Amino acid sequence: MNDVPSIDPRTGAVVEVVARETEPAQLEAICRTAASAAGPLERLGRLGRSRLLHEMADALEDQRDAVVQLADRETALGATRLGGELTRTCFQLRMFAEVLEDGGYLEAAIDHPGTTGMGPRPDLRRMLVPVGPVAVFGASNFPLAFSVPGGDTAAALAAGCPVIVKAHPSHPATSQLCFDILEKAAGAASAPEGTIALVHGVEAGAALVAHPAVRAVGFTGSSAGAHALVRIIEQRPDPIPFFGELSSLNPIVVTPTAAEQRGAQLAQGLVDSFTMGAGQFCTKPGLVLVPSGVAGDALVEAMGSATSERAAQVLLNGAVAGGFGSGIQRLESAPGVQVVARGHDGTGQGFEAVPTLLAAPAGTLPTEVTDECFGPVTVVVRYSSTAELLSTLEGLPASLTATVHRGRLETDLPARVSDAIRHRTGRLIFDGYPTGVAVSWAQHHGGPWPSTNSQHTSVGATAVRRFLRPVTWQDAPPELLPPELRDDVLDVPRRVDGRLQVPQRGQDSDPLLVASGTPEARA
Amino acid sequence: MNDVPSIDPRTGAVVEVVARETEPAQLEAICRTAASAAGPLERLGRLGRSRLLHEMADALEDQRDAVVQLADRETALGATRLGGELTRTCFQLRMFAEVLEDGGYLEAAIDHPGTTGMGPRPDLRRMLVPVGPVAVFGASNFPLAFSVPGGDTAAALAAGCPVIVKAHPSHPATSQLCFDILEKAAGAASAPEGTIALVHGVEAGAALVAHPAVRAVGFTGSSAGAHALVRIIEQRPDPIPFFGELSSLNPIVVTPTAAEQRGAQLAQGLVDSFTMGAGQFCTKPGLVLVPSGVAGDALVEAMGSATSERAAQVLLNGAVAGGFGSGIQRLESAPGVQVVARGHDGTGQGFEAVPTLLAAPAGTLPTEVTDECFGPVTVVVRYSSTAELLSTLEGLPASLTATVHRGRLETDLPARVSDAIRHRTGRLIFDGYPTGVAVSWAQHHGGPWPSTNSQHTSVGATAVRRFLRPVTWQDAPPELLPPELRDDVLDVPRRVDGRLQVPQRGQDSDPLLVASGTPEARA
Repeated sequence: MNDVPSIDPRTGAVVEVVARETEPAQLEAICRTAASAAGPLERLGRLGRSRLLHEMADALEDQRDAVVQLADRETALGATRLGGELTRTCFQLRMFAEVLEDGGYLEAAIDHPGTTGMGPRPDLRRMLVPVGPVAVFGASNFPLAFSVPGGDTAAALAAGCPVIVKAHPSHPATSQLCFDILEKAAGAASAPEGTIALVHGVEAGAALVAHPAVRAVGFTGSSAGAHALVRIIEQRPDPIPFFGELSSLNPIVVTPTAAEQRGAQLAQGLVDSFTMGAGQFCTKPGLVLVPSGVAGDALVEAMGSATSERAAQVLLNGAVAGGFGSGIQRLESAPGVQVVARGHDGTGQGFEAVPTLLAAPAGTLPTEVTDECFGPVTVVVRYSSTAELLSTLEGLPASLTATVHRGRLETDLPARVSDAIRHRTGRLIFDGYPTGVAVSWAQHHGGPWPSTNSQHTSVGATAVRRFLRPVTWQDAPPELLPPELRDDVLDVPRRVDGRLQVPQRGQDSDPLLVASGTPEARA
Repeated sequence: MNDVPSIDPRTGAVVEVVARETEPAQLEAICRTAASAAGPLERLGRLGRSRLLHEMADALEDQRDAVVQLADRETALGATRLGGELTRTCFQLRMFAEVLEDGGYLEAAIDHPGTTGMGPRPDLRRMLVPVGPVAVFGASNFPLAFSVPGGDTAAALAAGCPVIVKAHPSHPATSQLCFDILEKAAGAASAPEGTIALVHGVEAGAALVAHPAVRAVGFTGSSAGAHALVRIIEQRPDPIPFFGELSSLNPIVVTPTAAEQRGAQLAQGLVDSFTMGAGQFCTKPGLVLVPSGVAGDALVEAMGSATSERAAQVLLNGAVAGGFGSGIQRLESAPGVQVVARGHDGTGQGFEAVPTLLAAPAGTLPTEVTDECFGPVTVVVRYSSTAELLSTLEGLPASLTATVHRGRLETDLPARVSDAIRHRTGRLIFDGYPTGVAVSWAQHHGGPWPSTNSQHTSVGATAVRRFLRPVTWQDAPPELLPPELRDDVLDVPRRVDGRLQVPQRGQDSDPLLVASGTPEARA
């Protein structure tokens, strides 16, 4: 099999050979070990897996300098950004530990036996259980937070699913280092062998999603890559769920009042956002709707100035650089599209991109403008009326995010924009920028097609739901129930006979607070 | 277009022409009206939709005799069963009204802005919103509870999604009558025009899942039908979620102790279960694992006697009857399969089936035995050791249900059976029968492929999740938030800064009970 090279995107040169591509026999052994780890990992329990996630976060922190340095060598994203990404990655692992300790994610429910309006009912107890081994495809643009130690891995391990990561070829050395750290931490937390595994190579990735032991796939990447994997899944005798985070335009609307009140500040913020991480965020704003007129003109001019002062940026790899080059060409040749400004030319070394600001007229936008173009480019679209703004929004594809910059206390136009765009987005942002995704309970990172193919999130506490499925136990003897479904276990939120009950932490004398639902509603 | 005939399965004769197949122009108008109903139906709010569901249940009850009589004419399921099914259908509509009143299904979460371990966090507020118009494919075997007024319709309307039902050709008159009743009830509840619609014909069904306005599909039926629809969905520029409840073997294990202690009672129960509704339940037990030896022999003999006393049963339609005939042929010619007993021959009229009990040796079962055969047939498999029982279970496909009949206080073998089968089932039943699915909060009707293609349920309160998707509002002005996400609205369960809060019903002075989570965990 082929060598797996680590390439420095600042030079385009191979720095080292990290590994060899995973061979079929190795893949088979890895998948079998993952399958045999599923039971013990589930039995490790919520608190055992919480400890596992804490061990992993601590171990990554311990190796912070080495991880950041290696990731920078392979991605050119810079030590500051990558240090922040490592912090986020560890935060995320610990947040899923918190999700486990809370236990609400189990959606535990108990219906005691009784007579109902449709006749007698047996004892029914439901909760979510792990789906089994999960294949995680690392993303090129987040070598930590969406790769080996990333959100999909953390969510799947929290759920109780062994994880097999397909390393992204853009940062194989970082993947291997992170894997070594996580695997050692898994051992320290008494997690079973096979809790986490790593494979390299396109063929190994394809074989992974076809393997009977794999029960779900988490993927962050291009639509083309997703389509290839989905086609393999469709050939399985047992199709499995595929959770893909694919492509997103992330439109931003600047209202006329916002342009008047803080055009200069917005221009700076918008350029910062579309060039952040060399424009390689899934949430990069690819389209900015700016009003026509004096204030809008000034805003676009300021965006142009800021863009032209930007240095060339290093992209992640040759494929991204090639895609950026052809994407810019496609954009520039689209009907009505004009170049507003470009940043400085690069050095001619490595995988460089010149930050680029384009403009297009409002109305029915060509697909070149509404398709995602990965890299530091955005298109400003000028609208001359509310009607034109709204009809332009109605024609956009769905996105992970949509943003409105409004005037002070302005709500009328923002409400209309929100109504026009809300059914096409997963996160609706006011007076902010879509780049940068907080990891929390209320976060949602997802959206209708083409941004994802899922009704779930890949960031935040509820991301765990993707790797769980419900099971109901009917008239089960208590000793055969999972602990969380026994009558005498009161440490997780549960819906009992239709009433949601939450444990009262730290008050032994009054373990439960009962609320919601009425006795007659429980018929 | 073609006529839609109503056929009496007891005679095979056409009784009346109910309608004409829906033409493309009609379908287009129906889909557009559904799309325009989506906003108003969402704005009707939780309590408005709760009223809608109650109106529908009341209206169905008002027409009970007419509905049951017509459904019996088209399905031959009998007035008793269909009366019970109508009761269940109305109960189900009212249960989803209860789900709406409770509001927990929204998964509302609020993270206030603050500083976290990964830096500053904006104000984030998340809840589930309706996906948009839903296509529901009625099932032949439940003309009420899984058809026009059935669980998918109730769940989608509760979620706030307009519903377009594709009538099953096996009961078009019942579908039309139920639709007329529901449409009138929707008007009485001030729901928008287009809240519910009905189409007839295979081509209309295909066009429905291809239509841009349709945002999800609920389906209960054959794997072949599901495959055809999934292929259409894959051709869409924007693939949509397909929730299919497909085929299920529903194995039952009788432990040696159970066979000894209550073999005769079990024999009667098992025959009742596999012949219930002429064996046309998705949860019909298609495989019964019985121990070898004297007690097992007696049990099988008693099952044979009970089967041979059964009358021929009328199946739902010609396709089911044809499938049953060829299925029995396939089963009987499978290696090692033998006929234990048959019921009485029929009259030769209509779509009849003779209840049939077959036997097969344990071990690696042929696919003829492990594929679902719709209709009154089951296969008894004799096992001679625990090892043989467990290895046979390991080879079974996943099912909606798996059942263990155990001896009094027996837990050792049931635990091992549970471990072997749990990852291949959605509901694990002890000492009961899988036929008959209670509608409740803790119910789950689903399972791994091939029983469904979903990690969600099609029965019970959580079925509503299929027709919802998350949206997060970031730094939104309160007046642009949905009511359930405003700080001052306290009538639904919410997770606020990581702590689950449930409203205290009927105590105005203390509206919230707060529990779960710790302050430091909210970092």
